[in-house]
Amino acid sequence: MMDGAIDIHTHIVPADFPAYAGRGSGDRWPRMAAGHDCHHRSVMIDGNLFRTITDECWDTERRLDAMRSAGISRQVLSPMPELLSYWFDPDDAVAFGQHVNDTLAGMVVRAPDHFSALGMIPLQDPQLACGVLERLMASGTFAGVEIGTNVNGVPIGDPKFEPFFATAEQLGAAIFVHALHPAGQDRITGSPKLTNFVGFPCENAFAIASLITGGILRRHPGLRIACSHGGGAFALLLPRMEKGCGIAPDLAEAIGVPPRELARRLFYDTLVYDVATLRFLIDTFGVEQLCIGTDFPFDIHEQAPLDPIRALGGDEQQSWLLRTGNALRFLGGRTAGN
Amino acid sequence: MMDGAIDIHTHIVPADFPAYAGRGSGDRWPRMAAGHDCHHRSVMIDGNLFRTITDECWDTERRLDAMRSAGISRQVLSPMPELLSYWFDPDDAVAFGQHVNDTLAGMVVRAPDHFSALGMIPLQDPQLACGVLERLMASGTFAGVEIGTNVNGVPIGDPKFEPFFATAEQLGAAIFVHALHPAGQDRITGSPKLTNFVGFPCENAFAIASLITGGILRRHPGLRIACSHGGGAFALLLPRMEKGCGIAPDLAEAIGVPPRELARRLFYDTLVYDVATLRFLIDTFGVEQLCIGTDFPFDIHEQAPLDPIRALGGDEQQSWLLRTGNALRFLGGRTAGN
Repeated sequence: MMDGAIDIHTHIVPADFPAYAGRGSGDRWPRMAAGHDCHHRSVMIDGNLFRTITDECWDTERRLDAMRSAGISRQVLSPMPELLSYWFDPDDAVAFGQHVNDTLAGMVVRAPDHFSALGMIPLQDPQLACGVLERLMASGTFAGVEIGTNVNGVPIGDPKFEPFFATAEQLGAAIFVHALHPAGQDRITGSPKLTNFVGFPCENAFAIASLITGGILRRHPGLRIACSHGGGAFALLLPRMEKGCGIAPDLAEAIGVPPRELARRLFYDTLVYDVATLRFLIDTFGVEQLCIGTDFPFDIHEQAPLDPIRALGGDEQQSWLLRTGNALRFLGGRTAGN
Repeated sequence: MMDGAIDIHTHIVPADFPAYAGRGSGDRWPRMAAGHDCHHRSVMIDGNLFRTITDECWDTERRLDAMRSAGISRQVLSPMPELLSYWFDPDDAVAFGQHVNDTLAGMVVRAPDHFSALGMIPLQDPQLACGVLERLMASGTFAGVEIGTNVNGVPIGDPKFEPFFATAEQLGAAIFVHALHPAGQDRITGSPKLTNFVGFPCENAFAIASLITGGILRRHPGLRIACSHGGGAFALLLPRMEKGCGIAPDLAEAIGVPPRELARRLFYDTLVYDVATLRFLIDTFGVEQLCIGTDFPFDIHEQAPLDPIRALGGDEQQSWLLRTGNALRFLGGRTAGN
């Protein structure tokens, strides 16, 4: 039995992007620009600097060095969420996704004992997404996929995504849901950076709520879904949703299963930067549902992800679940597609 | 020293509304329709049923009966939030607000030992709002005002509301911030009722974040502000905001004071329907910052608000702070304008 710590929330960016070869304008086809030194590059989207990144985004040796320092044995790799590019038409989406997925597969092949991969799918076209998902899972290299909390503003609990979730359940694909283009940006005052710091927690909460209220979790009890950033603000929505079901029987009937029971079917990463908050999430969702997540290698990443687990002061069984056991369950035994 | 329990989150609706006498269309001037029996009436706004309410909304004797049952000595009365009617032009806003504020004042005068009042102001016109606030506070009948989390979509931390907060600080007016017309409604899947149950927690969180990131709390340390629904999801945004300040020095500098320190200047009500959540809020904000809130007399109201305080199992000092002491500080010693 593998016993090392698994980090389910890490991102990759390919070292470069192919030139646009589609039939559209290609304006939003990501482009890589040189950085200020050999370790940095800049991802340009729609002519704007999206983010300056380090070579840890694509260089497996540099990642392995960082993992040794942080005490992580295995990283679950997923695309930098902006790369999910739900704005593309189907042709461009498939071409771009293929490049990112090939990059992921290459990294796994280089170090299958240390990397698992979650690929990307064109969820703006759910039927097409199912086809790509089938190919990814058949390849034997992917444990599942990363998806955004919404697709061009439509929350993932919307009925239009039913075919995707049905297929993922059937194929046993792990799904990592990551905050993307958050709701409520018009309710934020100050620096544009707050979109991430203030917007992401609520965005995660809306997505999880939609999986519950839209019936996805009830209809597909076999799904293995993990939520980024500890589920964001969701744990503080849950008691009010329960109260709502208590006073509105029609609502309770429509949801069908108590919201807390559905919420406890999901996995959540530990990326909350606060031990008291981590303890509250464990109390809310159960110690079997939390997995290490760090957001490696971006600026905001948790550099010492084992520290909060130690600080909880639980027994060795709890510690093992949080470090390793829960992530193995989330991955469904497919750590590197084996 | 008053020792009874104080409920800072209760709402009123006048028994009736005057006919519209302004110069506009009056379409959104609230109208009261008969209910299915003598204890119920229906608030109509823009021709639609907004909510069927009970006579506990205006009948002080019926409120006092309910308070005795729940163990509450004093209710802080505020308008049903939809009545804040930020859609009105200045003339209509002043006329409508006058009617609601007169209703509040009448209820306080009937039982000043059991009711305090938070009035309404036309915050869609901040200068006009300052004038109304001055008159309310000069009347000796109001402890302060209730405001929404946003005014026609603009979060209350926006610089345009600076004059209001400066005046409130100067006059020592208590401010109760209540979730209203929440952000992210396009990210909710299912029943329209979820706007309240899923939308309110995030809406509260956005408003509190905006008070921090927009500088209102830093510039006005004397403000006494209480947030509805335990601050909604805000406690789960706070660690991420702190992390953001840690990695973005420009953001930390713009906010000026650590976000947690600013957050702990606010009061929060206990309306979270869950003892573990209440404990988490106390850990996050401090035991001196929580006050009983129930949402009386609406369907969602907490019927036994002292139970979760007992269930916390703290000492008598903690219990007194949560029941009474913190609310007295929020009210600034002005329980009924005395």
